[in-house]
Amino acid sequence: MTILIKGVHLDGAVRDIFIDNGVILEISPSCTRPADRTIDGTGKAALPSLINGHTHAAMTLFRGYADDMPLKSWLEEKIWVLESKLTEEDVYWGAKLACLEMIRNGVTAFNDMYWHWEATARAVTDMKVRGFISAVFIDMFEDGKAREQISLNQDLYALSKKYEPYATFTFGPHALYTVSKASLEWMRDFSIEKDILIHMHLAETADETRFSQEKYGMSPVEFLDSIGLLSGRYIGCHGCALDEADAAVLKERGARLVHVPVSNLKLAVGRVFPHRLIGKTGIPYCFGTDGCASNNHLDVLETMKFASLLAKFHTSDPTMLPARQTFDMATRTAADIFRLGEWSIREGLSPDIILIDLARPEFVPNFDIYSDMVYAANSSAVDTVICLGEVLMENRVVPGEEEIMARAAETARALVKR
Amino acid sequence: MTILIKGVHLDGAVRDIFIDNGVILEISPSCTRPADRTIDGTGKAALPSLINGHTHAAMTLFRGYADDMPLKSWLEEKIWVLESKLTEEDVYWGAKLACLEMIRNGVTAFNDMYWHWEATARAVTDMKVRGFISAVFIDMFEDGKAREQISLNQDLYALSKKYEPYATFTFGPHALYTVSKASLEWMRDFSIEKDILIHMHLAETADETRFSQEKYGMSPVEFLDSIGLLSGRYIGCHGCALDEADAAVLKERGARLVHVPVSNLKLAVGRVFPHRLIGKTGIPYCFGTDGCASNNHLDVLETMKFASLLAKFHTSDPTMLPARQTFDMATRTAADIFRLGEWSIREGLSPDIILIDLARPEFVPNFDIYSDMVYAANSSAVDTVICLGEVLMENRVVPGEEEIMARAAETARALVKR
Repeated sequence: MTILIKGVHLDGAVRDIFIDNGVILEISPSCTRPADRTIDGTGKAALPSLINGHTHAAMTLFRGYADDMPLKSWLEEKIWVLESKLTEEDVYWGAKLACLEMIRNGVTAFNDMYWHWEATARAVTDMKVRGFISAVFIDMFEDGKAREQISLNQDLYALSKKYEPYATFTFGPHALYTVSKASLEWMRDFSIEKDILIHMHLAETADETRFSQEKYGMSPVEFLDSIGLLSGRYIGCHGCALDEADAAVLKERGARLVHVPVSNLKLAVGRVFPHRLIGKTGIPYCFGTDGCASNNHLDVLETMKFASLLAKFHTSDPTMLPARQTFDMATRTAADIFRLGEWSIREGLSPDIILIDLARPEFVPNFDIYSDMVYAANSSAVDTVICLGEVLMENRVVPGEEEIMARAAETARALVKR
Repeated sequence: MTILIKGVHLDGAVRDIFIDNGVILEISPSCTRPADRTIDGTGKAALPSLINGHTHAAMTLFRGYADDMPLKSWLEEKIWVLESKLTEEDVYWGAKLACLEMIRNGVTAFNDMYWHWEATARAVTDMKVRGFISAVFIDMFEDGKAREQISLNQDLYALSKKYEPYATFTFGPHALYTVSKASLEWMRDFSIEKDILIHMHLAETADETRFSQEKYGMSPVEFLDSIGLLSGRYIGCHGCALDEADAAVLKERGARLVHVPVSNLKLAVGRVFPHRLIGKTGIPYCFGTDGCASNNHLDVLETMKFASLLAKFHTSDPTMLPARQTFDMATRTAADIFRLGEWSIREGLSPDIILIDLARPEFVPNFDIYSDMVYAANSSAVDTVICLGEVLMENRVVPGEEEIMARAAETARALVKR
């Protein structure tokens, strides 16, 4: 499949971009190569696509079902009740809706943790986006459950090869207060052997820190380090309760973080992500939306604005997380964390690409495309999405979207009545 | 002008809505009255329009020109330099761009404070939206400037009648650190005599409180109360540095507030708006975007999400500012503050109306329209806008938008080179 984008704004110039099987072969003022598909880039800007560092895709089914509640009753009376009833088919439609939503928001890769692994793998394969998918690993410190989960994860890892290149198997140990030390050690060994990424909630709340101190006599990071779980494969999500000692350990081990600002606010987790500490320490971090029960939109563009503005406010420094850096974190840094290669639009590279419609008031006068993207635009400015060398959306149309919305809506409504 | 909206979702039912000169005459399952204009409401929801409680409209011209800077150099080296060069025609195109942007975001009324009053009045009249427009009143405690400003405001008040019903004259004393006591007292008397709203920056930063304590030996609110400026006509914007004593005084006088969360974060003002205190005291407040130099989008829908989530986070209470209350604050409470009548879609009332396109992933499964509006949607879901009985946008098209964007872009680019 070859794609030719004609006359698009790229880094301040107007260029043609020729893509062959996802690889950018030519960027020039006028490309004359024949292409399978030609896209008119007039009045649009080409940028690398956005990457969602943390979500639970199929929770789109729960969007707007339970908001504005205390955490405990929200989980126990609403979310867990629905989750206990979820079928493989429910998760498939929820995840497919999530993929549709993310494509429309310019997101082509996401890091997922949820039940019914294969349903999400089928969804990303059908939607042709990149999913880093983990099964939720929870054993509640029970040996029987641990054995089940280990066996399931072994099976899923073997199965995952069938869903490449769209789905990539990752480990999803839920959190240290739901997964035993022995299970974490098993994941450590298996992840080293097979070179698998580990996706885990880390230092989200003060409760988690208390749990870790009481059970292990160490902070969450110190405990995970004591069992050798931290490495360049480790992706810790949230990180609100990290301190200086934790940051030093994470840096030393090469671990990565995902900041999830919208969810942290909505659930009122009580701690502020330590931007200055993490930035100073030099730990790579990108942004995640979390699932739709705690956000309620899988919108990395919006999350960039929240992240940048909250960083400025909480450090009392308006120069923190400037627009270009924020955009790069959601694209280049994220791509590095997920081992997607260099995520820039240059010859020889193969980033996913989005085209932004500039003919909108929020891009006037367009002094700075990165400022406009982070502070002014919303995700409806994404006009075209190219992922793994295929055009997933053009002129804001994703083929099949009506059916996905209808089936997902039916699924959600049936689920709450079940 | 009569408008018939057919088959639209309204409060959980499908209804026809018949509007005559802005007044809702009929809401019924099937309306057979002939209308000048019929709008297909299928798959859409009707809601009252959003109201922007605080902005500086023409600052759209500065969008993306200077971000991520310390406040002092941002103002002194960038913003004030451009503002000193602004002409009446510049402000007209900047304000027109702002009106276009707000219409597209479902905002039909806004509270403005800026230079070249008549340019903004012309813009709202041409765009047929409601502008509560104040000239920036700054005298820097100099008698000569004070006399000039008073004379100008008297003239503008007289002139404003020409721009009704679109433009409404208000007073815009910038802040107590830029306006003398004598000028505030003059505005107090004139505003009582003519029943004029007063739009003022209030308790935005700790610096302002310090200034007031040093100059007057009182907090900003205590000082304003000591000169009798506070009343139901008084609209204080920001309010981050208010304390319990201030809140009691504001409540006692019937004053109103506008919360401006995105700007507060971006400029890192250092204080958190006291939601719990203001809510407990029962002071009506709505939301403002601020100008595009400190936001950078005139998007009240986005501001609702910031406001609600920040309120939850900063009070450690996820039940704060629930979705329906947040939506009502941006619509009904705001309409009350600006004396626009009851802002609900009911027979006999005359709110401005927006239609929301529900056929989008972020409205699936649509368990709760208010949750979806506040937490999931972005403003591109606004499909149709009706203001003062006229259709300003249908199917996301505002007549003349290309010219406005082109002229505003030219204006901004010429301004920075001038």
